[in-house]
Amino acid sequence: MILYGYWRSSAAYRVRIALNLKGVSAEQLSVHLVRDGGEQHKADYIALNPQELVPTLVVDDEQDGDALTQSLAIIEYLDELYPKTPLLPASALERAHVRAMALTIACEIHPLNNLRVLQYLTQKLTVNEEAKSAWYHHWVATGFTALETQLVRHSGRYCFGDKVTIADLCLVPQVYNAQRFNVDLTPYPNIMRVWAECNQLPAFADAAPERQADAV
Amino acid sequence: MILYGYWRSSAAYRVRIALNLKGVSAEQLSVHLVRDGGEQHKADYIALNPQELVPTLVVDDEQDGDALTQSLAIIEYLDELYPKTPLLPASALERAHVRAMALTIACEIHPLNNLRVLQYLTQKLTVNEEAKSAWYHHWVATGFTALETQLVRHSGRYCFGDKVTIADLCLVPQVYNAQRFNVDLTPYPNIMRVWAECNQLPAFADAAPERQADAV
Repeated sequence: MILYGYWRSSAAYRVRIALNLKGVSAEQLSVHLVRDGGEQHKADYIALNPQELVPTLVVDDEQDGDALTQSLAIIEYLDELYPKTPLLPASALERAHVRAMALTIACEIHPLNNLRVLQYLTQKLTVNEEAKSAWYHHWVATGFTALETQLVRHSGRYCFGDKVTIADLCLVPQVYNAQRFNVDLTPYPNIMRVWAECNQLPAFADAAPERQADAV
Repeated sequence: MILYGYWRSSAAYRVRIALNLKGVSAEQLSVHLVRDGGEQHKADYIALNPQELVPTLVVDDEQDGDALTQSLAIIEYLDELYPKTPLLPASALERAHVRAMALTIACEIHPLNNLRVLQYLTQKLTVNEEAKSAWYHHWVATGFTALETQLVRHSGRYCFGDKVTIADLCLVPQVYNAQRFNVDLTPYPNIMRVWAECNQLPAFADAAPERQADAV
């Protein structure tokens, strides 16, 4: 397998954690999201991933390689292919709660605060740094306020009970990202407790942006 | 089951299609997203859905009711609970491609263009109507350009081959939404072909916003 990612990409970070938890090795190739206007917009990469985003996971499918996109789709694929140490609970109802927590981050926070959106705000809407920061903080606060309530209801040691799930794979990179943008995280004690707990695990710690080969 | 939704909500529209395809009836309750500042922000509703979004599906879990949130989590739940007429293909690799198409819409288009984001643009960033419209069109074009390529690779009668999947459940409401905002959809012939094909099915047609009891 080949994982195209970027050290600071939250979505690539999620997939790195999944690979580590599953004990699956993948060659990691860096797609620099900023240099030269962004390597994700180059023709070779677009052929792999028409969304011009990271991550992309290239897998061997019998003879041909196949390129998978969207971090949550990739993680569910890995979970189905390597069912040992499952990343979803066994019951449909519990799985729904875990997926809802993951999607609270993946649909309600991250898409609003990723690189291309912040670029649109500053470049096309000529939003200043202060307003850009307020935008970033607003969507983290909105999403984390909801997620904190979800954790009060469902968390144990991790987001859902005492086993690591895809919700944790989304939470840890989002906290990392929020810290980079100096968001005050003290209103979210359960989020921070789970974040610290996850980072005790080598699968999470080894996936951290600063530990990647392309980290600056 | 009780589905809390709103006629024009794309996310609620996805779940209505899923319920129809599965032949599952649910009582439908309307949460008016605009009236009185938005009924989704009232305390009673927040207790059900701390994300203050629609849809919410309340299901009977033995004795207690349980409230499920996030449309894709709800749809996967329904698909697991009612495996007849599956909404995902059988192989892990094919499932990954279908989920990636669904997430291209659910993570890369819809979160950027929903009501609360457009309200933030006009109210907090004092963006004018023209710039708001350009923002809306930009994210549809970005996502649909990628999705069109995904459909060239994977579509048959529907988004993925000749069976309806969760990708179609996301595509149809997103096209409806784009048409409301007068997006030119002629650059996306495969998207429009699949959209028209889906709407031939009663499960899709009956879920259309204008056919809902709370439609204005």
